[in-house]
Amino acid sequence: MAQVKNKQVILTDYVTGLPKESDMNVVDNSITLKIPEGLGALTPGLPLRGLGVSKIVESGDPDYKKDDLVWGMTKWEEYSLIPAAQILFKIEHFDVPLSYYTGILGMPGMTAYAGFFEVGSPKKGENVFVSAASGAVGQLVGQFAKLHGCYVVGSAGTKEKVDLLKNKFGYDEAFNYKEEPDLDAALKRYFPEGIDIYFENVGGKTLDAVLLNMRVHGRIPVCGMISQYNLDQPEGVTNLTHIIYKRIRIEGFGVFEYYHLYTKFLEFVLPLIREEKIVYVEDIAEGLENGPAALVGLFSGRNVGKQVLVVAHE
Amino acid sequence: MAQVKNKQVILTDYVTGLPKESDMNVVDNSITLKIPEGLGALTPGLPLRGLGVSKIVESGDPDYKKDDLVWGMTKWEEYSLIPAAQILFKIEHFDVPLSYYTGILGMPGMTAYAGFFEVGSPKKGENVFVSAASGAVGQLVGQFAKLHGCYVVGSAGTKEKVDLLKNKFGYDEAFNYKEEPDLDAALKRYFPEGIDIYFENVGGKTLDAVLLNMRVHGRIPVCGMISQYNLDQPEGVTNLTHIIYKRIRIEGFGVFEYYHLYTKFLEFVLPLIREEKIVYVEDIAEGLENGPAALVGLFSGRNVGKQVLVVAHE
Repeated sequence: MAQVKNKQVILTDYVTGLPKESDMNVVDNSITLKIPEGLGALTPGLPLRGLGVSKIVESGDPDYKKDDLVWGMTKWEEYSLIPAAQILFKIEHFDVPLSYYTGILGMPGMTAYAGFFEVGSPKKGENVFVSAASGAVGQLVGQFAKLHGCYVVGSAGTKEKVDLLKNKFGYDEAFNYKEEPDLDAALKRYFPEGIDIYFENVGGKTLDAVLLNMRVHGRIPVCGMISQYNLDQPEGVTNLTHIIYKRIRIEGFGVFEYYHLYTKFLEFVLPLIREEKIVYVEDIAEGLENGPAALVGLFSGRNVGKQVLVVAHE
Repeated sequence: MAQVKNKQVILTDYVTGLPKESDMNVVDNSITLKIPEGLGALTPGLPLRGLGVSKIVESGDPDYKKDDLVWGMTKWEEYSLIPAAQILFKIEHFDVPLSYYTGILGMPGMTAYAGFFEVGSPKKGENVFVSAASGAVGQLVGQFAKLHGCYVVGSAGTKEKVDLLKNKFGYDEAFNYKEEPDLDAALKRYFPEGIDIYFENVGGKTLDAVLLNMRVHGRIPVCGMISQYNLDQPEGVTNLTHIIYKRIRIEGFGVFEYYHLYTKFLEFVLPLIREEKIVYVEDIAEGLENGPAALVGLFSGRNVGKQVLVVAHE
């Protein structure tokens, strides 16, 4: 079997706090294109893992054949040995960019769909707030909410993103949370009648301010709390008594429990893409060399839209 | 119409922090036993309000007649003018103590029933943790959970209450949270496999420790957060990221949205009382004079079981 050169992004050590570029190395390695016996976990010295689009070079599984395109769990390297169970779906629609299967047609798309519709139980006319609203998931939640007849406000961390929210994704209003010394006051300005659904991506101070502004029977689908993951001491959230006062439901969810809806989701979203009723913004980094910087940038909000790393063009 | 003497517990001023006995006065007033034009709100100078059992002296509503017994919102006074809309239910079963309609057959009973069964969605064999577990609601949640085939642990604030939990209410285990310097460690001891349902009565540090110990798809019906209501600055809860990690559902509820289940609840609970498969412990204070101390005691945990204030015997 052919031995080929295989560029990889390697984790140099366990990461403390926010990831730094120095936590990762881009190395030239080689690989034999042959099905292995086992696979390592996320461990220093091994490549990082992530969801991606892959083209099958060789397959030991009858469901997949050479040149099939698939999306699912892969590793940060040019060639990867992937157990069939880590492939999520075979790609069957090619009239859209392949990169969309890392975003609007992949995990982030399903996350927005399941979190908003299944967990959020939205009703027409409700007031929806989305944090990290221009991100891979947020930009879709806002558009889904508008299509569903909701009033939607998003927050983001730069003027460029706020402009995108208003001018490209159709949010009714948007604001830069870094320029709001009083988040509670900002939310009261945009939601004088309160929030029915808060699509939670960030946690911490934002959640605390949102709780003060939820309406009775409000719902908070919890997709992420990115502001909290890498803190030594997470911020304390102090307004949880509002869960009782307003009978709020807060619900964490994992997209992997909703993949049985993927076909239904494609039937919903593909026509919207084709009819240009929905848009998707990607922030594309080219080449594994630029992977570490792209990953680090996620935590400081440097990316605009879904961060994609192109390992190879088809 | 007869003018009669009417002892009342009056609020002397708006309460700051925990209520103190000096915030209330017991006064001898008088009242004309006649239907009025309007009713005051909870205001200094007016009697406190609360749920209670009342006997109709005079009625302007065809649904109620003299000598009917009812339970619902009343005021802390010997005679009260109650709009029909504030009466919740007419009492129809008299083979149980009347005081039960302030507890197991009243709001606390319905709260335990709705919160555990409707919001908690319990399954046989699940692990249930209840805080304030010997209180008006908690003692019932534990017994309902045992009847449902769950493993149940409760926390309370005195040795006497802990004994009650284990020896009277049938909790599998119980502990005094004041004697646990590390609540997380205590919960890990009693729930080595984690908690499926946390019936939340207290909030703050307890909730924070519970979040670390929830199982995947755990549920937290939020009935109250009594440790937080009277703090100038509520405690910060720092472990909310576990909502995502374990896909936890936290849901505040109000018993008043479940009263349509009251008949079903009575059909469930009355036989259990009659067959002595469920017990209910009350802490009875006699006379309006002792009302202020009884109310204040709730916040320091002085009461054992449901605090009842007897205004008059039938």
